[in-house]
Formats: sequence, C-alpha cells, structure tokens
Amino acid sequence: MEGDICDPDRAAYPRIFPPREAGESDHQPFERCVNFPVSVVLPAAGTGERTGLQTPKQFCSFLGRPLISYTIQAFERVSWIQSIVVVVLKENMALMTDIIQRFQHRKVRVVPGGSTRHRSICSGVLALGELEGEESHAAVQPKVVIIHDAVRPFVEADFLYKIAMAAKEQGAAGAIRPLVSTVIATTSEGYLDHSLDRAKYRASEMPQGFTYDVIYQAYQRCTESDFDFGTECLHLALQYCGVSAKLIEGPPTLWKVTYKRDLAAAESIIKETLSRSACVVTGASAQAVTLAGTLQKAARTWDMELNVIPDLKGDNGSYLLTEWNFILVSGSLPCLSEVEAILTDFKAANRAPLHPFVIVWVHLSSSDELSISRTMAEQVAIMDLASAAKLQNIFLYGIQIHQSKEVPPPPPPPFVLMKPLGGSGKPWN
Amino acid sequence: MEGDICDPDRAAYPRIFPPREAGESDHQPFERCVNFPVSVVLPAAGTGERTGLQTPKQFCSFLGRPLISYTIQAFERVSWIQSIVVVVLKENMALMTDIIQRFQHRKVRVVPGGSTRHRSICSGVLALGELEGEESHAAVQPKVVIIHDAVRPFVEADFLYKIAMAAKEQGAAGAIRPLVSTVIATTSEGYLDHSLDRAKYRASEMPQGFTYDVIYQAYQRCTESDFDFGTECLHLALQYCGVSAKLIEGPPTLWKVTYKRDLAAAESIIKETLSRSACVVTGASAQAVTLAGTLQKAARTWDMELNVIPDLKGDNGSYLLTEWNFILVSGSLPCLSEVEAILTDFKAANRAPLHPFVIVWVHLSSSDELSISRTMAEQVAIMDLASAAKLQNIFLYGIQIHQSKEVPPPPPPPFVLMKPLGGSGKPWN
Repeated sequence: MEGDICDPDRAAYPRIFPPREAGESDHQPFERCVNFPVSVVLPAAGTGERTGLQTPKQFCSFLGRPLISYTIQAFERVSWIQSIVVVVLKENMALMTDIIQRFQHRKVRVVPGGSTRHRSICSGVLALGELEGEESHAAVQPKVVIIHDAVRPFVEADFLYKIAMAAKEQGAAGAIRPLVSTVIATTSEGYLDHSLDRAKYRASEMPQGFTYDVIYQAYQRCTESDFDFGTECLHLALQYCGVSAKLIEGPPTLWKVTYKRDLAAAESIIKETLSRSACVVTGASAQAVTLAGTLQKAARTWDMELNVIPDLKGDNGSYLLTEWNFILVSGSLPCLSEVEAILTDFKAANRAPLHPFVIVWVHLSSSDELSISRTMAEQVAIMDLASAAKLQNIFLYGIQIHQSKEVPPPPPPPFVLMKPLGGSGKPWN
Repeated sequence: MEGDICDPDRAAYPRIFPPREAGESDHQPFERCVNFPVSVVLPAAGTGERTGLQTPKQFCSFLGRPLISYTIQAFERVSWIQSIVVVVLKENMALMTDIIQRFQHRKVRVVPGGSTRHRSICSGVLALGELEGEESHAAVQPKVVIIHDAVRPFVEADFLYKIAMAAKEQGAAGAIRPLVSTVIATTSEGYLDHSLDRAKYRASEMPQGFTYDVIYQAYQRCTESDFDFGTECLHLALQYCGVSAKLIEGPPTLWKVTYKRDLAAAESIIKETLSRSACVVTGASAQAVTLAGTLQKAARTWDMELNVIPDLKGDNGSYLLTEWNFILVSGSLPCLSEVEAILTDFKAANRAPLHPFVIVWVHLSSSDELSISRTMAEQVAIMDLASAAKLQNIFLYGIQIHQSKEVPPPPPPPFVLMKPLGGSGKPWN
C-alpha cells in the first residue's frame, strides 16, 4: 500500500487503517484519517410518526434493504471509526440484531433506548464507556463520539473527518445548514410577533461530535427536564460544560428523512449512488487482477467506486447484498461456469429482483484475432444463460477486450467491444 | 345542481361557481367558497440554483408535464379563484406562455418578474390591479391576493379557503409549519451562540394571503433594501401596514421543492395523487350517465376523484393531458369504435408514454345472461386492440357489469366481472 497521507511519524492509534491506494489520479480526494479513537452513537428509537407509516422510517426498505443499514454502511466505510452503537426501542432489539446479521455489519452493537431522544443518546454514550475490556470488540473508550441520526443515510467520510477533528479541538462540533424557510415567532394567540433575520440563524443538523468527556459530563449534569424536553446536544455542551461548539456548514445530503415524501427522495439518492458503484470479481487470474486495478483507477476519475475482490465467497458475500452492478473479469480462458456461479450466488442471496442487477462479463483476448473461436454450442449456452437471467431481472452483458500482443500488457486496453448478451438477440461470436 | 353550501341569501360574488354536487355521502368535505374576489400571484422567476440542475425546478417535468402546470392546476380547480398571475423571468415568458397553451390553463396571465423575490411578487400584485377593465379576463380587482410559490404544487382548496378568509378578516394570513431542525444563532467566528426554543418558533411557509390594499401599500411603502434583501411578505405587512398576520398551521404537503432530491419526492406525490383520480367518459347513453354518477359518489368515499364528461372533445380534451386513468362507460350496446376513438385521441394528444395509462372499458349488460353474445371476429378485434395499445404503454381492461332485470336500475351493480383485455391472453367472451 502506498499513498498513506497520515503522517507516518505520528503515533498512530492501532485501529487506524491506512487509506486506500492513491493510484495515479490526483484529483480524487482520498480518505483522511484521524489519530485518535472515534466511535458513533446512532439513535434509532424514533417511531416515525411524521411519515404517517406503520414502520418507523429507519426500518423502511429501499431496494430490499432497511434505511438504517445504509446509514451504518456509511460509517463502516470510514476506516478510522472503531465502533458504532445503535440505540433502538426495546421491542426493536431483535429486528435490529437481525438486520445487522443479514447485512453482515461489523463494528456494531445494539442497545435499548430511552423514552426520549436525549435518554437514547445517553444510553449509547454510556454503552461506549462500557466497551473497554470487551474482548469481542477490542476497542477502547473513544476520544471523540460522533452522534448521528439513523435517518440521515448520506453522510460522507470527508465531513465526518471535519466534525471529528473540530470536536477534538473544541470539545464539540456540529453540522449546520442554511434555513430553507423564514423562521417566525408567534404570539400566544397565533399571530405574527416577529420574523428572524435568516442571515443570522442556521438549522442545526447532524452529525455532531463531542469529546467523550464533554458529552458524558453534559448528560451527568443535565436536568430531568432537559432529558424529557430537550433535543439539542450542542445546547447541553454549552450549558453544562461551557463548551461552545464549532459549527461547520454541511452538504445538502445531510438532510433527515422526516416525511413520507422523503422516502421517495431517499430512494432516488440511493439509486443514484448505487449506479456509481460496482463490484469487480477477478478470480485467480493475474491478468484479470491487473485489469481490475487499472479499471479501479480509471473509475475514480469518473467519480465511480469500484470494489475489487477475488470472489464472492465468505465475507465478500456481503457485496451480493449491497451492490447492484458486478463486473466479472475473466482471464484469457473465459469459462461459462464463472458466470453460472455468480448467478447461483445471486439466487442464494435471495434478493428481491424488483430492480435490475447488471453483470458485465469482461473477457480478455490476447490473440490478435478479434473474434475468438467458439463452438456453436457454447454460443447457444451463453445466450440461454443471458435469457434466463433476464427473466430474474438480471441483465448480463459481455465485453471482449482485445489486446494486441505488440502492446505491453498493463496499460488500459486500446479498444473495447461491448456486446449485450440476450435481449437484443445478437449472439456473442 | 344541489347541495350548494354557500348561504344562498348572501350576495354572491358573480364569479363564484357553485361547489360540486353534494351527493349522498356526507363524510366527504365539499369545497367551501368565499363571497369576495380572490386572485393569485405565483412568483416563478427563481433560477433553481439549489437543485444543481440546468432547468429551474418550476419547469422540470413530471410525467411529461412541468411542475408549475401542476401548481396552476391546483388553483384552477378552486372555483372561487378568479385569476392567476404567473411571474417569470423575461427570458422565460415564451416558455411559460407555451406551457399555458399546451396544458390549456385558463384564468392565467404571465408577467415578467423583477430581479428579486419581492420585486417579482410586486410585479404580480400590480398586474392584478391592472386587470380591471380588461375584457378578456372579465375580472375585477381582487379583495384578497393569495401569494404562493410555483414550486409548491400540492396546496389544497380547503387550506386556501382558510388563508383567504383569515386574510380578509385580519388583512394578512400565512401558513406555518413546525421546525424540523433546531434553529441556532452563530457567532461571527462560526461558534454556537445560542439555540432557540423550538416550541416558540415556526417555519413560515406558503400560501400567504393579504387584502389587496395591505399588500399593495406594503410594496408602495417598503424600502429598496427590503426589495433587494427581504424575503418575507408577512414582515412587510407588519412593518409598513401595522398588520399582524394570522398564522395557520398547514399540512406537510405545503413543502417547497428546493433540492434535487425534492424532485423525486414531488414525483412520488404526483404519482400517488394521479392514481387517486380518473376521468369517466359516458358518451350519450343515459344508462352510462346514471352509472357514472353512481360511481362518482362511491369514489368519494374511497377518497378518489372522478371527473365525469360525455366525451374528450373540445375543452374536455384537456383531461387527455392531465389524467392517467380513464373509465369508458358504454351503454347496453357497446361498440368497439368507442375504444378506438379514445385510443386515437391519446395518440393525437401526443403524450410521452413513459408511464402507463389505464383505460377501463365498462360494459353494461342488462340481459340476464352473464356472457354476451359476440362473434369470434369481434373478440379477436378487441384482443388485437388491447395488444396494440399495450405496446404504447396503454393498459386496456374490460369490466362487464351484469344487472338482473329483477333489480331496479340506478343503485350500484350487484356484481362485477373484471376481465383484462390482452396481457393475460384470456379473450373477452
């Protein structure tokens, strides 16, 4: 691994993982990492009454996966976050545990929440304090606690970094956004008293970050009334610890799924995000691994995220649950059984095919001839496979990459032939 | 027409139309009407920079129709609103005029806007003052002006009534909503100064209503700085006319399409709304008209809106542009050409078939035999028609309603046979 932008001379906290390979592109921001332990509290004990739905919104499914699982994934992707405590209603403990198992989340603990938002967050903070000594988590008490909402799934690593750094420096930090509507004060009879100058106020959003000591002390010192009626952690830090939070302007994606209409908005963003991500399966072929690495670097410049893995076995099986686009790279001897295997894996993962999966089978040809020799039986078998997959809402495409022997192997392929399998009815030959 | 709940002794303003027929159901709220002239100003000169899209959001299309056309329709449906002034950027005048023609909006005038929100609303208010004497609009200067945003398409008649009544009584009235986030005051260095008690503040939303005199005077008296930097009309009414607006809590549907994600949310609501609305075409058959009336009354109890019309000619052609569900009721002598005619009308209306239309052909059978006699050729012709329609994303269904001669004619049919035409491949026989 190269390109670690953490200062190597700094005493790195043992759970900090190096950021991903820097590659050759320098206009892609890489994950910045912190050198102190950071954990997360995700209050998810809301009943979602504002959506008007039976299911609390954090448990509503998008493309077969509950909203909270997307939020957890957003934190799991950040290498320097050591653990996540999810706080749910007692009656949802089993449901939440099941979600964690089904979507193979790591670093996550579930604890039962209290009757109000502050009581739930407090439970989460106390649970983080108890982590110490628990062998299974191998985590220490965090220096900084990030508090976020389960129903804000689109938080980005870069913004979490800003919050964590500011929280460590200042004791508290929080995301803000400009006000969308004018805020007005009302008289007790329901008339306009005065309107606030929009320029002087901001909406307080999530995530917020606190040093463990500040948030712990704030909850130790605050009143029952704060616990029952308060909603703003930054206010507790100011009132009970004298810490004035650093406020950081966040992106619009920080918004909170609140109303029923927000479910459609969340789904549209999830779909857009998923369309910019794919899983590359290389098999054991060295040639395929090289091509996948080249692809991964190129993809970064298109703002697309490629995860390269050798196969979909073991832990890698989790990609079957979270990705919608797969690129299967075969070496110079492509074999139909590779594609059959991935289709079988899909079936085993039992995902509802309401939305189409795309599998692109990339076949490297090192011969100088453009068309590779295939028997008629093979062609028919491929077409049959693609047609059968299509009935399950899986679109199977084929790309043949021809690489002239005169060109040295690693750089990007000089040209690409893309042929859809099935659908258009044109055989691969 | 019966069931007019306006007091008949009150001197009705001449442009007030009677509300729709009351029918027999009494748990459906009927449109309440006002007895004074009300007009609307729709500022639509925003550039939509917060969506991050090239097209300003009011002109973004949903199911082939721009957002602003839905907003205009929401006001056109309210019988007591006499005219609507849409204020757009000078460069969008032609586009807006085209939208009004294409979607056959009535009561609408387009005027060029100013460089800020207040300047645009002021242009609209002044244009309303000029309406007097214009033969083409046959409208008088309004008593109350409702100001709304073009990008809040889901305003309901009942709420407009409340705003109009309160505005007339108080001089000004505005919609409010609870705050979704805590509002905080920041120091000039970007730290938390204090947070506001959420219970004492509200978000000011749209629509707002003013007597013409109040809003006119407010704009006459306000400063250039108000015009340039202000955003809140209620504030101008308070500061320059001493009128403290009545604040009315609005439904969540009043929200404003602001960010790109809101476009998906708006589309989901539009789809849901359209699925609860249908157009019933009766032809000239008295029996069909009776059935349509029964259907319309029943539909109200399911919270569904049915518009009953004899045909899709003339002004009724506008339903081809706004509805997605059509119910074609035939008398006892159904004729294939009725269905062919509606399909031809669809083609002529030239709507993009990205979303499916549904046409249900209801055939009344007064014979005691369940299966009506049809020649094989007729059956084949119906199936062919349904199959051809399906290719254009039009789903054609058939319902045969059998009415025993022993039962008196008008009440709801004793049983219904629904047979899809095409698709399932089962012939209508």
